[in-house]
Amino acid sequence: MNFHLPFLPFRPAKPRNKGLTMMMDKGLSIRQVEDFISVSAEYTDLVKMGFGTSLLSNNLKEKIKLYQAANLKVYLGGTLFEAFLVRGMLDKYIELVNGLGLDTVEVSDGCIVIGHNKKCDLISQLASQFTVLSEVGSKEAGIIIHPTRWKNMMEAELSAGSWKVIAEARESGNVGIYRPNGTAHVSLVNKILDKIPQDSILWEAPQKSQQVWFIKQLGANVNLGNIGYEEVIPLETLRQGVRGDTFFTFLPDEVKANFAQQS
Amino acid sequence: MNFHLPFLPFRPAKPRNKGLTMMMDKGLSIRQVEDFISVSAEYTDLVKMGFGTSLLSNNLKEKIKLYQAANLKVYLGGTLFEAFLVRGMLDKYIELVNGLGLDTVEVSDGCIVIGHNKKCDLISQLASQFTVLSEVGSKEAGIIIHPTRWKNMMEAELSAGSWKVIAEARESGNVGIYRPNGTAHVSLVNKILDKIPQDSILWEAPQKSQQVWFIKQLGANVNLGNIGYEEVIPLETLRQGVRGDTFFTFLPDEVKANFAQQS
Amino acid sequence: MNFHLPFLPFRPAKPRNKGLTMMMDKGLSIRQVEDFISVSAEYTDLVKMGFGTSLLSNNLKEKIKLYQAANLKVYLGGTLFEAFLVRGMLDKYIELVNGLGLDTVEVSDGCIVIGHNKKCDLISQLASQFTVLSEVGSKEAGIIIHPTRWKNMMEAELSAGSWKVIAEARESGNVGIYRPNGTAHVSLVNKILDKIPQDSILWEAPQKSQQVWFIKQLGANVNLGNIGYEEVIPLETLRQGVRGDTFFTFLPDEVKANFAQQS
Repeated sequence: MNFHLPFLPFRPAKPRNKGLTMMMDKGLSIRQVEDFISVSAEYTDLVKMGFGTSLLSNNLKEKIKLYQAANLKVYLGGTLFEAFLVRGMLDKYIELVNGLGLDTVEVSDGCIVIGHNKKCDLISQLASQFTVLSEVGSKEAGIIIHPTRWKNMMEAELSAGSWKVIAEARESGNVGIYRPNGTAHVSLVNKILDKIPQDSILWEAPQKSQQVWFIKQLGANVNLGNIGYEEVIPLETLRQGVRGDTFFTFLPDEVKANFAQQS
Repeated sequence: MNFHLPFLPFRPAKPRNKGLTMMMDKGLSIRQVEDFISVSAEYTDLVKMGFGTSLLSNNLKEKIKLYQAANLKVYLGGTLFEAFLVRGMLDKYIELVNGLGLDTVEVSDGCIVIGHNKKCDLISQLASQFTVLSEVGSKEAGIIIHPTRWKNMMEAELSAGSWKVIAEARESGNVGIYRPNGTAHVSLVNKILDKIPQDSILWEAPQKSQQVWFIKQLGANVNLGNIGYEEVIPLETLRQGVRGDTFFTFLPDEVKANFAQQS
Repeated sequence: MNFHLPFLPFRPAKPRNKGLTMMMDKGLSIRQVEDFISVSAEYTDLVKMGFGTSLLSNNLKEKIKLYQAANLKVYLGGTLFEAFLVRGMLDKYIELVNGLGLDTVEVSDGCIVIGHNKKCDLISQLASQFTVLSEVGSKEAGIIIHPTRWKNMMEAELSAGSWKVIAEARESGNVGIYRPNGTAHVSLVNKILDKIPQDSILWEAPQKSQQVWFIKQLGANVNLGNIGYEEVIPLETLRQGVRGDTFFTFLPDEVKANFAQQS
C-alpha cells in the first residue's frame, strides 16, 4: 500500500481461503495479461478462462503460464466442461486439463441437466486429481430453484469434494441468485447461509451493485467472481472501504462520530 | 484451435463471403491494435474506423497498415463520408481514402437525407474504384421505415454496386433494426430476408443479446458488425456454440439426446 | 488533425480554461497509461485517480510522472480526501499530495457531511498551496438539493478559492445533476448557469447521452468529467461534430441547407 490509512478492514494475505476474487478472462492478449498481473495479481486469487474461449485462444498455454507464475489459480470455464461432457468426452477433457498444466477444474450444469447424484460422482472423481469448483444454479433467466434445493445441492457437492461452490450469475449477472434486473434474491442468499459456511461459497457478482450488496451483507472477505479484468482494483476499493458505496461500512463508531454520513 | 471438439458449426476460412465479423475501432492505440490482431485477426474480417475518429487519430496511417498486414479490410465510418458530403467535398473524401491506401468505403445516409437515386449514383460512382458497403436505416430512435422500403432500398443499392448492405443499429444498438430497448424487429428482419440474400447483409449487432438472436435465427455464419474490440472472441464462441446462449444451437439430435437441456 | 474539414467548432489549445476533459483512472497499468497518452493526451486536461485506487496502485508515482510529463493535471479522487478527513488526518493527506508531487487537490463532501463554512475554510486553506477543484452534490441517488442551494454553494466555493466546481454524478452517472435513470435535471442545470459562469463548472458526465446533452446545450467547450480512458476520443468526436449525435450542432446554416437532416 502506498500509505497507511487506519481502520481498514482486515484482508488476509495470499494464498487465502476467503475474500477471494475470481477474474474472468474473455480472450485477453499476452500483453493485456501482463498488464493485468502488473496491477491486480495481488488482489486476485482465481482466473477463469471464460466459457469456450479456451477453444479459440491462440495463446492459451502462454497465458496460463503467466497467470500461474503470478500465483493465480487458473481453470477453464464450466461451459467447456459441459461441451465435452455432452459429447461423451470426459476423458478427453481430463487430458486437456492435464496437458495445459492446470490443477483446478469447474464442474457445472448450467447448460445441460446432470442428475445430482451423477454430478456429485463427477465431483468426487475429479476431486481425486484436481481442486474442484462446482457451480449451482441455472443459466436461464427467471428460473427459480427452491432455497432448500440450493442448500442441499451445495452441501452434497461440498461433501463430494468441491473446494468451493459457485453461486451462478452468468457473465451478465441476471440469473441464478439474481433477478432478471440484476438485484439479489436476498432471502435466498440468507437461507443458503443458514446451512452453508460463507467461506465455502463463491458468489458470481459481475455488476458493481451486486459487489456492493455482498460486501455490505457479508463483509470485506466475501468470495466474489466473474469480475472483469479492469474491475478488480475498483472491487478491491469497495472491499477496503475506500469508495463511496462502502465508505462507512467498516469504520468504527468513534470515527463515524466525527462526521455525519451523507444520506 | 487448441483441441478438437466435434459437432462445431462450419466456419469458412478467410477471406470469406459470409460469417463476417466487423469490428469498430473507436480510437485504439498502436499497441491495442497489435494486441487485438494477436488474438482476434483470425475471427475478424472488417475494421471500421468508427464515426469521425479518423479526423482525430494521430496514428491513423500506422493503424491502417497494421490492420491491412493482418488481412483485415479497413474503411472509414459512414458519418465521416457524410461529413464530407454535406460540405460538398466528395472529391476530397475520395482523395483522403486513396491517400490512406484504403480499398473500401462506406456510403451512408444516417445523418443527412440523400435522395435514394442520388445515393445509388454515389454507390455506382464509388464502386468503380472501391469495394462499397452501403448502410440502410435511420440513426434516430423510434423511426420506423416500412419493410417494403427496407427491401427496395437494399435491392437497389446492391444493384448499384454495393458489396454488402449494412442494416443500421448505431454503436449503441437501439435504432434501425432494433427497438429503443435493443430487441430486434423480428418481422422486419424476416421480411427483408424474403427478398435479399442473407450473405449480402451485414447486421450491426453491438449488444450480446442481438448477436445471440441473429445467430440463433440465421446461423453461425450471419454477418455481424459494430463489435467492440474485446468482444470478437466472445462473439466467436457464440458462433461456434461454446457459450451458454448457443450451446445447443448447432448440436445434432444424437448428441442433444445425451443430456436434457437446462431450461 | 489528419485532414482539413471546415466548419468545425473552435477548440482552444492546451493549456486551456474551458472545453476541459477530465479522465478517471480506475487502476490503469503503466502500459495502459502510455497507450492512453499516445492517443488521447491532446484531448485530455485532467486525470483523476478515481476514488481510493491510489491506496492500492503499486505504480502510483510512476503513473503520475507519465501523466505530468504529457502535460496532464493529476489529482486524487475526492473520496480519498474524505477518507483522510473523517479520520482526522488532513495533515497526512497534504503530506501525501506533496510527496506525490501533485499540485491539484479535490475537496468534496460526497460521503461525509461537512458544514459549508468549514468546507469553504478547507478550500481556502488548500488553495494557498494547490489548485483546488471542489465538488458539489450528493453521491446518493434520489437526493434533491434545491437549485438555490447548488448556486450558493458553488458561488461560495469559487469565492473561497476553487479553480472549478465539479457537479457530482459519481462514476455511474445517476446521482446529483442526473436522475436515477441518468437523464439530466434540465431546470437545475439552467438555474445554476443563471448565476455561475459556465467555464467555472466541470460537469461529471460518464454516459454518452449526458455528454451529448451538455454539448448540445452548452457547446463544444463545456467542461466534462468522469470520462473513461477509452471514451476520450469518442467524446472529442462529439465535441467536434463528427459523430451522428452532434453532426448538425455546429454547422452553419449555409452548409445545413445542402441536405435535410435525418429525423
